[in-house]
Amino acid sequence: MKKIEHLGIAVSNIEKSNTLYTKLLGVEPYKTETVAGEGVKTSFFRVGESKIELLEATNADSPIHKFIQKRGEGIHHIAFDVADIEMETRRLVAEGFVVLNEVPKQGADNKKVVFLHPKSTNGVLVELCQETEAPKSPGNTGEK
Amino acid sequence: MKKIEHLGIAVSNIEKSNTLYTKLLGVEPYKTETVAGEGVKTSFFRVGESKIELLEATNADSPIHKFIQKRGEGIHHIAFDVADIEMETRRLVAEGFVVLNEVPKQGADNKKVVFLHPKSTNGVLVELCQETEAPKSPGNTGEK
Repeated sequence: MKKIEHLGIAVSNIEKSNTLYTKLLGVEPYKTETVAGEGVKTSFFRVGESKIELLEATNADSPIHKFIQKRGEGIHHIAFDVADIEMETRRLVAEGFVVLNEVPKQGADNKKVVFLHPKSTNGVLVELCQETEAPKSPGNTGEK
Repeated sequence: MKKIEHLGIAVSNIEKSNTLYTKLLGVEPYKTETVAGEGVKTSFFRVGESKIELLEATNADSPIHKFIQKRGEGIHHIAFDVADIEMETRRLVAEGFVVLNEVPKQGADNKKVVFLHPKSTNGVLVELCQETEAPKSPGNTGEK
């Protein structure tokens, strides 16, 4: 794990929470994004090399809606930045961790993501994430 | 807030969790510490510029014991590194945040700490922390 990429916080009203976290962190969100597949609206704040992600449910089937129904607002998950998500997922499965999706899926903020089941990590929902390649422009050879 | 200083995770058995998180994070804890005043045993892992802190209760009055009784193991708090904890606490109180201790107290890992009440931060227990000065004289043998 290279760093804490972000910490996800489940909130009931993202507009109110954007105001609150702007006061708390002393910075405004640098972007907002809706991830239809996950049923969430998100906003991101930078703190050092990491981010705080606020998540509001957009429908009743959203994992964020279910989380808040059960436990109330609060810290929902921690995401670690990894260099090679496929290799890291294989390593953790071999170590006995339970993954929710063995094939990385598209998450917010231009990332491929894999979640580990909280039952194998002391009740903590862990996300692995790896930045996906930026869209290639004409003339871009794909080399970085 | 300068960075996420650490993320605190409440666990029932810190020895077992040390083994688990060593596998998860790919590094061993760099230190363990008992904070008698808080009723906790702790261990710390480095991840980028941040740390993961595992906390096990040492008695039934410990906030960690109460947290696990109520919600089970899981993420307990997030700590932000601040440059001037007294000034930051005054700023947040003026912004309407509720603090649990207005005067910083001694926490684990050589830090002065102030906690914000989760009711003013969307259910998140927020810790502010500032490193206390390291012992100055080479002849000082009172510190470990």
